[in-house]
Amino acid sequence: MFISKEVQPSATLKFSQKAKEKIAKGEIIYSLGLGEPDFDPPVELIESVSAAAKNGFNKYGNSMGLDSLRLHIAQKLQNENGIPCEKDDICITFGAKQALILALMAILQPGDEVINISPCYVSYVPQIKIAEPNAIIKNVDLCRGDFSLDFQMIEAAISGKTKCIILNSPNNPSGKVFTRAEFDQLISLLSDSEIYLISDEIYEYLNFGQYGMISPGSYNEVAGRVFTINGFSKSFGMTGWRIGYMAVPKKQRKSISTLVQHINTNVTSFIQKGLEGIYNIDRGYLNSYNMHLRKMAGYITDELNAAGLQVIKPQGGLFCFVNVSAKGLKSDDFAAGLLDEQNVAVTPGIAFGENWDDYVRISFAGKEKEIRSGIEGIKKFLQ
Amino acid sequence: MFISKEVQPSATLKFSQKAKEKIAKGEIIYSLGLGEPDFDPPVELIESVSAAAKNGFNKYGNSMGLDSLRLHIAQKLQNENGIPCEKDDICITFGAKQALILALMAILQPGDEVINISPCYVSYVPQIKIAEPNAIIKNVDLCRGDFSLDFQMIEAAISGKTKCIILNSPNNPSGKVFTRAEFDQLISLLSDSEIYLISDEIYEYLNFGQYGMISPGSYNEVAGRVFTINGFSKSFGMTGWRIGYMAVPKKQRKSISTLVQHINTNVTSFIQKGLEGIYNIDRGYLNSYNMHLRKMAGYITDELNAAGLQVIKPQGGLFCFVNVSAKGLKSDDFAAGLLDEQNVAVTPGIAFGENWDDYVRISFAGKEKEIRSGIEGIKKFLQ
Repeated sequence: MFISKEVQPSATLKFSQKAKEKIAKGEIIYSLGLGEPDFDPPVELIESVSAAAKNGFNKYGNSMGLDSLRLHIAQKLQNENGIPCEKDDICITFGAKQALILALMAILQPGDEVINISPCYVSYVPQIKIAEPNAIIKNVDLCRGDFSLDFQMIEAAISGKTKCIILNSPNNPSGKVFTRAEFDQLISLLSDSEIYLISDEIYEYLNFGQYGMISPGSYNEVAGRVFTINGFSKSFGMTGWRIGYMAVPKKQRKSISTLVQHINTNVTSFIQKGLEGIYNIDRGYLNSYNMHLRKMAGYITDELNAAGLQVIKPQGGLFCFVNVSAKGLKSDDFAAGLLDEQNVAVTPGIAFGENWDDYVRISFAGKEKEIRSGIEGIKKFLQ
Repeated sequence: MFISKEVQPSATLKFSQKAKEKIAKGEIIYSLGLGEPDFDPPVELIESVSAAAKNGFNKYGNSMGLDSLRLHIAQKLQNENGIPCEKDDICITFGAKQALILALMAILQPGDEVINISPCYVSYVPQIKIAEPNAIIKNVDLCRGDFSLDFQMIEAAISGKTKCIILNSPNNPSGKVFTRAEFDQLISLLSDSEIYLISDEIYEYLNFGQYGMISPGSYNEVAGRVFTINGFSKSFGMTGWRIGYMAVPKKQRKSISTLVQHINTNVTSFIQKGLEGIYNIDRGYLNSYNMHLRKMAGYITDELNAAGLQVIKPQGGLFCFVNVSAKGLKSDDFAAGLLDEQNVAVTPGIAFGENWDDYVRISFAGKEKEIRSGIEGIKKFLQ
């Protein structure tokens, strides 16, 4: 395939390389870069997965996923998210990330346009270009004042060639959770179109602000045109396990099924078996973790606003996206300088979209002590 | 992406559907269709993988793979296969299947030609077209008399646009193990070119005939142009685990690394950790299994030759590819009729290449008793 210039190694790599060099020299790094919760998977899931391997669930399986797990997920999406779907709509994937690229591969034709809400997860743009090198990406920025959807710009970006819009709520990197009013307006904009919505809901259970979770797949007006994408990585502490899923629009089921047959064969059989009741386990630990996230979101917002930066308080997810233009540096220079001088690792805004070079992403996924040390480092760097 | 007509669901699906219907009705099916060994993963590997999950190897990891496992594989490829490679050349993937499509994605540009040795694994052709919809596939058939490489045809197929040749030895579906003489001749044909070799060596340890395993990556003449692809599925009874790998030519390392970052993030971290010493375990069970395969290969060859079919005795792999033209049916009609009348499931030759519609693939991966019943059914069907 033609690998376009948009398909580059993650912009965060050079910082992790520099951080590794410092660690090798014995220096302590305060990492506000990583995007994974710091808790382990629930013990009962580790046990059920181990038992499944011991009990022989080690052979080829259905390419779309283990039926019992697909049914469990379909019921979850119906009951919790109001999405009308059935077992056969569900495709289990190697992480939500793979679900996203499969959806793009299934629907994008050369010349199709994708409306990508920016700033966004670092892999969206490369994934679009891997899935279809001749797709045209129209980035539409969130409003700078409050990270709300900019409907004027979205409407202006829509054309007869628009194939899909990619949405992520709770949002990485902005911390925004889109509101009912925003979803209503977006859906009404799309209701008479044939545009697909790809809804990345991976941070669903990390939602600690005032806005409830809304899944666009629950709107009748766009029925049959929404890929609802989610996974277990963030909420169950299993980022490395790579188990995600999507609810596939019926008219795309054959394409997705064909692609996963020839790309995956199946997703790890014993893990699927071990997770077949995953949403039934006690998720009380998520309450404590969300309390931690809320506290850290407030702390970072208050501290950095007081230090002269512009911070919009995150409502969900693991990140705070901070305007650092007061320092007068481009985002990668800011991040490199901060790492050099204060041993604090953050992610430059440019990694999340070309118009966000005056921002950095600060993760509050980790331990409070490390976060506080990191924020103190940032404050010193600003002086 | 443009999904071309070559990208179709596996041709074997309609048979498995029919077989399922029969099973649901309480009928016994003799399955000679499946391509997976019937033994479980070694207990110590199930235990080490479970321990890795318990011990916290559940987070994001290196996109190219866990360093300890990559080093272990590089040493195996050096020592057993004579391939000069190092840790950083190794990429761990979700199965050998994913390694193959990643290699194709990395190297193929629109208009490039791929020489595909036919008959071949059912996913090669769809994978080429998924990786690059505008690639041109030149299928070159194995010689019908002995399934040897047809060098006249290969030479005729090579052009200035040839980007790669895909080879699979031991071969699915033919059971052929390419000889030293064949590899010598192939390599000399390619030595002054820039053509890549993609060598699928997944059946390496299922090799029960007279020919030793040869890895084309060991030839200096094509150094830097061979993707050596292998995995643990077939030899360690873990087809459903989906752990494969490839040795990546140095000049393609950056492309592969970028692709896996944006497609996989990483391959399941605790499984990689648990398998970091996989080639050190006692593989005595493979001796017994290869004895079973040799016995079954001989049995099937003798029985079906005696029954009037043309059978070339398999040397490796799990399959016998049988010329059934004596029955006067196209391969899918043969397979459908055999399933209908005798409850025996085989795979039609057309699934492995358009010129092989007078063949069927018979798997001898399973239990002797089932294989004997299946062969008896075929003999009755032929009468």
